[in-house]
Amino acid sequence: MTITVNLNADLGEGFGAYDIGDDDSMLGIVASANIACGFHAGDPLVMTRTVRNAVAKGVSLGAHPSYPDLQGFGRRPLRMSAAEVEAMVAYQIGALMGIAATAGGSVTHVKAHGALNNMAAVDEGLALAIGRAIKGVDPNLIYLATAGSEMARAGRTLGLPTAEEVFADRAYDDNGNLVPRGQPGAMVHDPDVAAANVLRMLEEGVILSVTGTRIPCTVHSVCVHGDEPSAVAMAGNLRRTLEAKGVRIVPLPDLRDRF
Amino acid sequence: MTITVNLNADLGEGFGAYDIGDDDSMLGIVASANIACGFHAGDPLVMTRTVRNAVAKGVSLGAHPSYPDLQGFGRRPLRMSAAEVEAMVAYQIGALMGIAATAGGSVTHVKAHGALNNMAAVDEGLALAIGRAIKGVDPNLIYLATAGSEMARAGRTLGLPTAEEVFADRAYDDNGNLVPRGQPGAMVHDPDVAAANVLRMLEEGVILSVTGTRIPCTVHSVCVHGDEPSAVAMAGNLRRTLEAKGVRIVPLPDLRDRF
Amino acid sequence: MTITVNLNADLGEGFGAYDIGDDDSMLGIVASANIACGFHAGDPLVMTRTVRNAVAKGVSLGAHPSYPDLQGFGRRPLRMSAAEVEAMVAYQIGALMGIAATAGGSVTHVKAHGALNNMAAVDEGLALAIGRAIKGVDPNLIYLATAGSEMARAGRTLGLPTAEEVFADRAYDDNGNLVPRGQPGAMVHDPDVAAANVLRMLEEGVILSVTGTRIPCTVHSVCVHGDEPSAVAMAGNLRRTLEAKGVRIVPLPDLRDRF
Amino acid sequence: MTITVNLNADLGEGFGAYDIGDDDSMLGIVASANIACGFHAGDPLVMTRTVRNAVAKGVSLGAHPSYPDLQGFGRRPLRMSAAEVEAMVAYQIGALMGIAATAGGSVTHVKAHGALNNMAAVDEGLALAIGRAIKGVDPNLIYLATAGSEMARAGRTLGLPTAEEVFADRAYDDNGNLVPRGQPGAMVHDPDVAAANVLRMLEEGVILSVTGTRIPCTVHSVCVHGDEPSAVAMAGNLRRTLEAKGVRIVPLPDLRDRF
Repeated sequence: MTITVNLNADLGEGFGAYDIGDDDSMLGIVASANIACGFHAGDPLVMTRTVRNAVAKGVSLGAHPSYPDLQGFGRRPLRMSAAEVEAMVAYQIGALMGIAATAGGSVTHVKAHGALNNMAAVDEGLALAIGRAIKGVDPNLIYLATAGSEMARAGRTLGLPTAEEVFADRAYDDNGNLVPRGQPGAMVHDPDVAAANVLRMLEEGVILSVTGTRIPCTVHSVCVHGDEPSAVAMAGNLRRTLEAKGVRIVPLPDLRDRF
Repeated sequence: MTITVNLNADLGEGFGAYDIGDDDSMLGIVASANIACGFHAGDPLVMTRTVRNAVAKGVSLGAHPSYPDLQGFGRRPLRMSAAEVEAMVAYQIGALMGIAATAGGSVTHVKAHGALNNMAAVDEGLALAIGRAIKGVDPNLIYLATAGSEMARAGRTLGLPTAEEVFADRAYDDNGNLVPRGQPGAMVHDPDVAAANVLRMLEEGVILSVTGTRIPCTVHSVCVHGDEPSAVAMAGNLRRTLEAKGVRIVPLPDLRDRF
Repeated sequence: MTITVNLNADLGEGFGAYDIGDDDSMLGIVASANIACGFHAGDPLVMTRTVRNAVAKGVSLGAHPSYPDLQGFGRRPLRMSAAEVEAMVAYQIGALMGIAATAGGSVTHVKAHGALNNMAAVDEGLALAIGRAIKGVDPNLIYLATAGSEMARAGRTLGLPTAEEVFADRAYDDNGNLVPRGQPGAMVHDPDVAAANVLRMLEEGVILSVTGTRIPCTVHSVCVHGDEPSAVAMAGNLRRTLEAKGVRIVPLPDLRDRF
Repeated sequence: MTITVNLNADLGEGFGAYDIGDDDSMLGIVASANIACGFHAGDPLVMTRTVRNAVAKGVSLGAHPSYPDLQGFGRRPLRMSAAEVEAMVAYQIGALMGIAATAGGSVTHVKAHGALNNMAAVDEGLALAIGRAIKGVDPNLIYLATAGSEMARAGRTLGLPTAEEVFADRAYDDNGNLVPRGQPGAMVHDPDVAAANVLRMLEEGVILSVTGTRIPCTVHSVCVHGDEPSAVAMAGNLRRTLEAKGVRIVPLPDLRDRF
């Protein structure tokens, strides 16, 4: 039986005169794109271009909502009420849907960005607020959530199609959380190790923590990064290695029967 | 035969801690609301509240896209490419659709705000860019345009349902343009005169200019303002006067067969 | 011996088309104004008008820097590095100085706004970052700090002229902290009680907590609010009551020899 | 007699996570920096870093105020009242002064950015509004103006020290205006031609237009660009060529006796 999995990346993160990341290369590697919606990056023109390029390459579209924080690139924690988070996420999903409609695409998933994603991973209220926004806009939208997080739980609680994602280039601790950047061993730099990690997750359903503990996990998608040349190379390497092992990389909506 | 017409107003123009206008009163007067989409006013929470209130009162929802200019309330002319206007309008329509979906409503029309509206009234390229955005997002959306403007022409050129609006409280010159605010006689302060103007437009299909010239016009909607207590009183007065004359005030979508 | 004290309020908190608070009334009551610098409220025109009005009434000028959060009115906690806070505060102080110079005034104090103020009151690093910004811009600027807070300590550590402020309309707990809004007894609504509280602080150097504990305090300034008609009335009442008791209300710089 | 001239460039035009231009290289070439003040680019941290680097390299500091338009990089024309322009420019100059004070530098000139600069070059009212802001903040600040523009005239009318700048890499028409980008021959790509142009301006006091007309001009400063690798190379080449011809490159304040 062929193993299938999704690869996703954050794209369309330029703004006005500013460019960031190598979207063209990444669109040749991933099968789904999380597209910035103007709050941490992305403006209507950048969003339009990104949607067009993604559609041309058969990459499925996701909204990538964030706290309103262009200066901090959405990475600075901000305290907001659940009602405000819900409204803000619905706004951003809708905005991308509007752009997507004019650019020949349609939005099929939602993944929170930066601080919003990190905070919602461990905060039930926040995870549910994001989920209610998704469900309110369109209950067929896939909630793309960190594997094992409060978001994954919230998505299932709300009856949303919920996809769980892991990181190929990050180490996990014994609780299944990411080892924080900056700590020794937090980043996986060897593409073979990264590919082996992902294969283990897909074939055995476990994450191997830094201490060697096996943590059961469900994996629908693997998040890769494209913010540096080395990251793009790593992502391309991972895709090739997975495909060489017979893994098929598909857009998120193709996995619907597994959510 | 009963005359039917729409009354519309700009609503949801607060932002964060800031309030402006008397939305509650206006929602009891108009049948359609043009809702700020975050670029000149309105934030996701304000938009959510406005949609909920409008839905509760049976007022139909329109997106009210603007140049990105919170500080200038969207009233300052800004030069942008047509591609940028198109993307920006699609973004804002979509954002309101997202909010509307979570708040139990749906967006049925689009009316440009402030400087964007004034400029597009006389600029074919701009009028078409707005129209393409509307059509791209959803070709069933009604393009609410100043009567006789480039926007009205653009809407018909693009095959969009196009509604033409007049102002009850403004004087018109012999070309059918508004007498600029600040010029003598620009504003109509007497509610009876305003109501008589509107009735003439509806019954005879003409605007009477300040010099007495009769200008043929098509009127689907009358725009009223709610930014001052006197404006609210004027709007309420107009509605009562029209209804007393047998005119029926209906939401914009009810007039679809006339577009 | 005459007792002297300062009264201060947050002013200039409109933005573009939006107005908030009754600045005209408040400028007749307070002796020092904390002027919004564009990050939570205030735009260059609003700032210019506010400075002009304050100068005309002999009210001394303070910068009122905030997190960049117009939508949240600077009330939402945001996590930022100390370096970023320092730069952001220096930027806002400088901006007001630029405006003040063109409008015939000069900035003599700095008071943090909203969430930044609340967080710095209990966070030494944040309090020092604000203090370094003040000192870096001009070491003669007065750091207006919540009485007994980390900001008051930071100001003295850095050798800045440091003024301590209390609230006339708020209750204090046994640790000298404000009873959070929303808890019973948090707000003082009786102007006579408020005036008595302030007199006790000034004459006896103590705050009387909600449980009756006497907490030693130093008071240079009393913060009053003007966001509601009742708040303005309360502030005016407080000023008259204090003056009737022989207290003299002076601008902050007049108290320099006490810092 | 040694010929002296200033070289200036726009620097500090990153924002948050976004970088643009090669500031490090440019700081080794120019003698004065126009530093973005947060309205079209630059945030408080970027400004702080830029000031520190410029100070370390002996490059003099100028404020580079813009219309509030991060998305359009300040290049989109925006219509604003003169009062608003004046307040906005004073705000930005002050903000950079605040940052500069904390980073060990001081602001000595002001040069408008993008659309504001282009519009003020031919609009007396706008040119005077910018000049009043400069004078209001500090009458010793140098107004760096396009040679022969309304800004140059406004600076002298207001009694400000006024420096006139030319572009080494742009062609001029017979009226002394820049040939618009996009027209054939608008850009000078040959560094030897660029250097010859500048030498002619300095030695003979004339600009040679595209048709060969000699237009009298006063030149205090030459603007170079650093937005592309080729631009940086061009700028470095120009500096070396000028120095080889015996021209001395100095910071703007060193030319005060010529304004």
